[in-house]
Amino acid sequence: MRSNLAMSKQEMPLATGLDVRLAARAGALDAQTAGMAPGYVQGNLAILPRDYAEDFLRFCHANPKPCPLLGVSEAGDPAIPALGADLDIRTDIPRYRVWRDGELIDEPRDVKSLWRDDLVSFVLGCSFSFEEALLQADVPLRHIERGNGVPMYRTSIQTQRAGRFHGPVVVSMRPLKPADAIRAVQITSRLPAVHGAPIHLGYPEQIGITDLAKPDYGYALPLEPGELPVFWACGVTPQAAIATAGVPFAITHAPGYMLVTDLKNAQLAV
Amino acid sequence: MRSNLAMSKQEMPLATGLDVRLAARAGALDAQTAGMAPGYVQGNLAILPRDYAEDFLRFCHANPKPCPLLGVSEAGDPAIPALGADLDIRTDIPRYRVWRDGELIDEPRDVKSLWRDDLVSFVLGCSFSFEEALLQADVPLRHIERGNGVPMYRTSIQTQRAGRFHGPVVVSMRPLKPADAIRAVQITSRLPAVHGAPIHLGYPEQIGITDLAKPDYGYALPLEPGELPVFWACGVTPQAAIATAGVPFAITHAPGYMLVTDLKNAQLAV
Repeated sequence: MRSNLAMSKQEMPLATGLDVRLAARAGALDAQTAGMAPGYVQGNLAILPRDYAEDFLRFCHANPKPCPLLGVSEAGDPAIPALGADLDIRTDIPRYRVWRDGELIDEPRDVKSLWRDDLVSFVLGCSFSFEEALLQADVPLRHIERGNGVPMYRTSIQTQRAGRFHGPVVVSMRPLKPADAIRAVQITSRLPAVHGAPIHLGYPEQIGITDLAKPDYGYALPLEPGELPVFWACGVTPQAAIATAGVPFAITHAPGYMLVTDLKNAQLAV
Repeated sequence: MRSNLAMSKQEMPLATGLDVRLAARAGALDAQTAGMAPGYVQGNLAILPRDYAEDFLRFCHANPKPCPLLGVSEAGDPAIPALGADLDIRTDIPRYRVWRDGELIDEPRDVKSLWRDDLVSFVLGCSFSFEEALLQADVPLRHIERGNGVPMYRTSIQTQRAGRFHGPVVVSMRPLKPADAIRAVQITSRLPAVHGAPIHLGYPEQIGITDLAKPDYGYALPLEPGELPVFWACGVTPQAAIATAGVPFAITHAPGYMLVTDLKNAQLAV
């Protein structure tokens, strides 16, 4: 991951998922979570009204590579026992985003005052987990070396529609030497819970990407000679689908401010 | 594989490895073995004097991708029980090649008259097994569609030397669309006993191949637009190493006339 053991503002150690969640809950943590609690699975959050939850659950099931579902709550219940013994989804993420009718209206530190009995929480796997596995195998990741986010692109590949949720698959791109690309396919194939194997490599135009230098999200990352662009399905896919689904009210994590769970990355490998 | 259930000249059914071996032993089979005994593992044969066997064993161990060792005999023993209950390596292959001081001197139907107490038999995995797995997954293989052998190239990658055995890694090339290349990495990674994952894809010049149209062995196979060349380590690697090692006497299979074992391809997957 990006740094060694992180500390919160109050210098609480952030060695485990629970450490990070308790620091966020105490209001002592106002930072992106990359590099915190090394080895623990971090996840994307989407909280939707029950009226939209069933469609979204089917959307995740039909599109497991961009939307790998790690856990779902009961409606109105801020706990997700499968992801953490002591977990309150209203407080345990350092920064949230609140959406009304597709518009971003706030970025609060907790969402206790916004909680409703009909809200269902979805936690989706994220690329931090497979990036940790790649780095452990000495597959270099240039966006991390540069301290940038990964470049992401809307593709010409459409998700499988489920009710009101639809839209293009968004991919992240990592430039890799051919032998590293092969190793990366092997490693990420074992991690279907966090996007799994790449969906493409080599020819961006085949998936509707006309200019690698102009990502739709994140930062451009030039290919060096002899490298292949390798594309993974990305968690921005469900975010974009939520934004266009006409959801009247939704809560997500703020970009980079993830839910850190009690699961270990090493447990995810199949 | 390349055809449906094959029949020998005497119309014996060739449904199992034992069927093929018994037909060869009876002198009733004078054909390449591709497509015979579908599902059964076919192997490359190298028979060497004991003086060279230990070096060669170390060579295989040090270079498992080009030289995946399926079985080794005791010196002088024509049986290899791990590969077949009723197996006589002197008779059970339809056509052999006999080498003296690196020169091909004969292509007999059996090698009983040449047998010696100091001969050690090595059987190495071959690409037929992983090609069967790729075809079952609907990954198209153009050289098979065309009825040709696969194109093979000497690379700038050197094997790890073991005693008198050394030389370049020889690779086979299959043109694949990107999504099929990813699937092929996944499938062949599970088959390390038959060359395993590709060792390269995308940039032939990175492994010393200057012209894909001029293979060192086999038939050229042009890339179509949007395809990647995918390279696997190839069983010609040990054959070339044997040819240059100064072995005074050796026996191999004739190209395409393989040993068909009692192992099933499906058993090989890890």
